[in-house]
Amino acid sequence: MFVAVMGYGTVGSGVAEVLKMNAGSIKKKCGFELELKRILDIRKFPGDPFEDIITDKFDDILTDPEIEVVAETMGGLHPAYEFVSALLKSGKSVVTSNKELVAVKGRELLECAKANGANFLFEASTGGGIPVLRPVSQCLVGNEITHVAGILNGTTNYILTEMIKNDTAFEDALASAQKLGYAEKDPTADVDGIDALRKICILADLCFGKNVDPGNVEAIGIRNVNLADVEAAKKLGGAIKLIGSADRLGDGRIAVIVCPSFVKNGSQLAACDDVFNCVLVRGNAVGEVCFYGPGAGKLPTASAVVADMADCAKHNGCDRSPEWDEGSEGYVVSGDDFVSEWLVRASGSESGIAGAIPGAKIISAAAESSEVCFTTPELSYGSLNALLGSAGAQALSVIRITDY
Amino acid sequence: MFVAVMGYGTVGSGVAEVLKMNAGSIKKKCGFELELKRILDIRKFPGDPFEDIITDKFDDILTDPEIEVVAETMGGLHPAYEFVSALLKSGKSVVTSNKELVAVKGRELLECAKANGANFLFEASTGGGIPVLRPVSQCLVGNEITHVAGILNGTTNYILTEMIKNDTAFEDALASAQKLGYAEKDPTADVDGIDALRKICILADLCFGKNVDPGNVEAIGIRNVNLADVEAAKKLGGAIKLIGSADRLGDGRIAVIVCPSFVKNGSQLAACDDVFNCVLVRGNAVGEVCFYGPGAGKLPTASAVVADMADCAKHNGCDRSPEWDEGSEGYVVSGDDFVSEWLVRASGSESGIAGAIPGAKIISAAAESSEVCFTTPELSYGSLNALLGSAGAQALSVIRITDY
Repeated sequence: MFVAVMGYGTVGSGVAEVLKMNAGSIKKKCGFELELKRILDIRKFPGDPFEDIITDKFDDILTDPEIEVVAETMGGLHPAYEFVSALLKSGKSVVTSNKELVAVKGRELLECAKANGANFLFEASTGGGIPVLRPVSQCLVGNEITHVAGILNGTTNYILTEMIKNDTAFEDALASAQKLGYAEKDPTADVDGIDALRKICILADLCFGKNVDPGNVEAIGIRNVNLADVEAAKKLGGAIKLIGSADRLGDGRIAVIVCPSFVKNGSQLAACDDVFNCVLVRGNAVGEVCFYGPGAGKLPTASAVVADMADCAKHNGCDRSPEWDEGSEGYVVSGDDFVSEWLVRASGSESGIAGAIPGAKIISAAAESSEVCFTTPELSYGSLNALLGSAGAQALSVIRITDY
Repeated sequence: MFVAVMGYGTVGSGVAEVLKMNAGSIKKKCGFELELKRILDIRKFPGDPFEDIITDKFDDILTDPEIEVVAETMGGLHPAYEFVSALLKSGKSVVTSNKELVAVKGRELLECAKANGANFLFEASTGGGIPVLRPVSQCLVGNEITHVAGILNGTTNYILTEMIKNDTAFEDALASAQKLGYAEKDPTADVDGIDALRKICILADLCFGKNVDPGNVEAIGIRNVNLADVEAAKKLGGAIKLIGSADRLGDGRIAVIVCPSFVKNGSQLAACDDVFNCVLVRGNAVGEVCFYGPGAGKLPTASAVVADMADCAKHNGCDRSPEWDEGSEGYVVSGDDFVSEWLVRASGSESGIAGAIPGAKIISAAAESSEVCFTTPELSYGSLNALLGSAGAQALSVIRITDY
């Protein structure tokens, strides 16, 4: 079967490499070859081993009846969205590693795929090389899923690991991540939780069967986490990770947030360091399962893309795509209403905090800096901020305390 | 769609419960109901909520044209093998939680399924509720898998966790496991690694595409592991877990073993405690991924069985089963030829061991007990025993040192 790749960057070139490197075993497992016929990119790649099949004309893929499956690894919404739509409408199956495309346009593209007898798969969009979306949709079909959460961004996990293991300050850890190529020059999408936000929305779409608009979800990044917070977490017997999480509430709504989070030592999430990712899912039959592995990188992400291509190819004409309902007004609880126990570092005095927040437990108070670290009982993010305001205090960092 | 269950024990009754409890969400995800029409068991269950559909006649399932998918949760080889064969030959799809059946007869039953347009799935046979077999066969199809290993038996993991966390002696930890219902009165299959052996053989079948006969694989259980070994592992910065592992060697053979193994603190396997299981897979594209969750239990195992039932139902007429080649003479390296670094406790003197085993590093030597704990460089299990013999020493416990 002939396939094509759109976007010859890190992931796209990884897909070409994996298809070549493992051609024999892929053929054995699929029953036929996945032959790469075209690569779309506006750039030129003189001397590249795939130079002969690189084209800058989308129509070379769209109008080629031999090409049945296309991998979109361009990233960004445009023109990825227009290209993927056109391909699906022509009946070609599409797989993608593009989390922005799936988080924002996933539901529409799935409907388009179904309407045209094609498949739209996106395992690589969340958790990179980790098999997680397919296991969640297929292997946990006997469960009502109650909770999904994960370390979904490798860059921030690398930074936090440096802070935890080597007492490196945030700015230095970020610089090191940039030097190693883990972080962009403009690290906003990673550090402010935007990347993790898209991924937890995709997971919530799949787990709870209803569309979550990333625009309705609060994302608190790791910029405000400092070594005092890391130390406070150690005192409490755990570590700080940037976690995207989604809970099904009793009333049918869901609570979704991306937030620096306290996890207990000994848990699978606490054991997920450096650029690795880990996703935890709770179901009413299975209990708790976790999926761990490389959340990014050329070949790991390509591994997931190629598996989706093989799935489309092997099940040509068979509906393999997941689906979920349209979102609705008020389905996602607002950030202010998100309820949790919290680990907070705030300006103010020990007595001021203790007086303002019932049940607050002081972890440490540095007299000279007039900063107080404390934990709170369950209360909403909005109430936390209101109570702090009433005490004339200001949150310097807010960390959600998880039960894992 | 109508389905049936054979064997109304722990897992079978769990399947009935999950089908009922989550009927609504299963219907939503599959597009149709999975209606339980028959349960086969030779026992009577007066007053049971499913009493009306329980039968002791296999033919009530075999000859009912409405029943399209059957879950086999009886365990054991006979009559499970005969029943499953007959069902597949009649074109019904079968899913099973029976690791013995899959390890011994899996390849034959898969061929039988394919020949009759049916599916044979067995996610629940390995790792209980953890989605692992489907992810390995489907999500890692773009990889040459080089290594698969796992904590595959919850009972022994509970015992070892008690020894590690609470300094409980083996016999006491075993008694506690029996009291809690985690271990059978005759704990041989768990403690001697037979259960883990079947599961690593199933994983090796899938990962390396060729049948592994459990009879060709060495299984070293945990009976000889004592608190001195646990202590030695702590000194080395890790813990002892019972791990089944399989490696693809450069010459196309594979090395498979079940053996108490040293894993490093901070790894996903080290963070897998109590009755939980964890499977690690290495592929040449993805790198390393891990799957963690409950390796046994009524509802978790039922979760995996029901997912397989839904897969068969949703893909009726579509080949969803994995496949692997026949095994061959010499494909599996003999236990004596299994090469690893080792952590050993042996009778003998420090100087005797140091003289007999080049590169041995003494961890501890208790003069009064004439026992020595030491590590070795890479050498085969056979050589280790030969060298110990030449020193007039005897291995009291042998622990494989892993690189994870």
